[in-house]
Amino acid sequence: MQKNQPTLIYGRHPVVDAARAGAPIDKIFLQQGTRGEIEKELRHLCKELDIPMQVAPKERLDKFTKGNHQGVLAFLALITYHRLEDVLPGIYEKGEVPLLLLLDGVTDVRNFGAIARSAECCGVHAIIIPQKGSAQINADAMKASAGALSKIPVCRENSLVNVVNLLHSSGVRLLAADLEAKQPVFKMNFTEPVALVMGAEDEGISHAVSRLVDERFIIPQVGTTDSFNVSVATGIALYEAMRQRFEGS
Amino acid sequence: MQKNQPTLIYGRHPVVDAARAGAPIDKIFLQQGTRGEIEKELRHLCKELDIPMQVAPKERLDKFTKGNHQGVLAFLALITYHRLEDVLPGIYEKGEVPLLLLLDGVTDVRNFGAIARSAECCGVHAIIIPQKGSAQINADAMKASAGALSKIPVCRENSLVNVVNLLHSSGVRLLAADLEAKQPVFKMNFTEPVALVMGAEDEGISHAVSRLVDERFIIPQVGTTDSFNVSVATGIALYEAMRQRFEGS
Repeated sequence: MQKNQPTLIYGRHPVVDAARAGAPIDKIFLQQGTRGEIEKELRHLCKELDIPMQVAPKERLDKFTKGNHQGVLAFLALITYHRLEDVLPGIYEKGEVPLLLLLDGVTDVRNFGAIARSAECCGVHAIIIPQKGSAQINADAMKASAGALSKIPVCRENSLVNVVNLLHSSGVRLLAADLEAKQPVFKMNFTEPVALVMGAEDEGISHAVSRLVDERFIIPQVGTTDSFNVSVATGIALYEAMRQRFEGS
Repeated sequence: MQKNQPTLIYGRHPVVDAARAGAPIDKIFLQQGTRGEIEKELRHLCKELDIPMQVAPKERLDKFTKGNHQGVLAFLALITYHRLEDVLPGIYEKGEVPLLLLLDGVTDVRNFGAIARSAECCGVHAIIIPQKGSAQINADAMKASAGALSKIPVCRENSLVNVVNLLHSSGVRLLAADLEAKQPVFKMNFTEPVALVMGAEDEGISHAVSRLVDERFIIPQVGTTDSFNVSVATGIALYEAMRQRFEGS
């Protein structure tokens, strides 16, 4: 996307038309109390196209634009989102061993960008993020990624539980970073099809996902500081995966 | 240092007195054209106490304070700097194998903080930075370090060449990250006394230091993105050092 292109569209028809035309949309805002045909249509579209919708008071929408938004406003996405079910088969077809990265609630934009950069460097096939509670992929994230976000597929998924089920049925094991884990990261086997699961900076992995992971590991540490920054921790785990794959090849 | 304590002092006597009393000073600014006894005294003090001094026009000093600075102004340091010659013997005396980190021109404050955090997690004994051309250790750096900058000794050194000579004469080998290197980081031996050398985000290690390092390594990568973010790359190399020391022990 060019720097001067708008990332915001507003008005009932423009937003509906853009969504129908397949424009990459990050999020749609609907004014509180909007009823009738337009509400029905937008809800239907968002569900069909996996676009997050947020209902918000008029004041919030007014802050985004001075134009006549008619209670409907959409932010265009800076990247095109993918679906894991489309991406996954292609990895196997290329004869490669899937290395995926599931980010469960990483919200800091700069961390997210740096993680995407490391992921691309380490040969990650796709980054999976939840529709809600993930960092916005804005200009700062793009910059921190050093271009990586334009190269690596990002799958934005409505249900991480469905994602885990899909991964399991495709033979992909989930290895999750967990500060309570006993096994060090270098005891994990990253040479088989795996998805690395990294949680939120403060709270770790969500309960729903946590129940479904196959193994947990810790990045061992000597010092007394809380733990590694999440982008450094992700870089370390991805490096470990790459190291094992290099040495095994 | 408490949040509300001043980090700036100004005026000829206050600055000279603070420096003489051993207050941790980050930098002294001297107004362009200042001559006489005060100039001589400050130059002498800065040299003796290894405090960086910068000569700057009056307008620059005026921006820092509206008070009567009399052409002299000092920023207090948020941490106490150490000297490598004081820190190094203590490591051997404790029976530990030195693991040091030399940051040659890392200027981004958040990266610097994240690096300090990783260093503390990985058991680095001290971080060595040059007096000129390093990130300011300000509140943002402290925050990004998650407290690590208050725990790990930071040695601010006038001459990195002298540092390298001291390290070599103490049996410490220098291993430097270098995008042109052939050897992958996991082929380095981090179980002996080593200093990891990481360069500037854009230009890498300075020529003066580069000539003196013992081995160079690259963090292998699969993707096409430029390279890892410097704080991630440092985290990976430190993790590799820790992994080798864990497995060797």
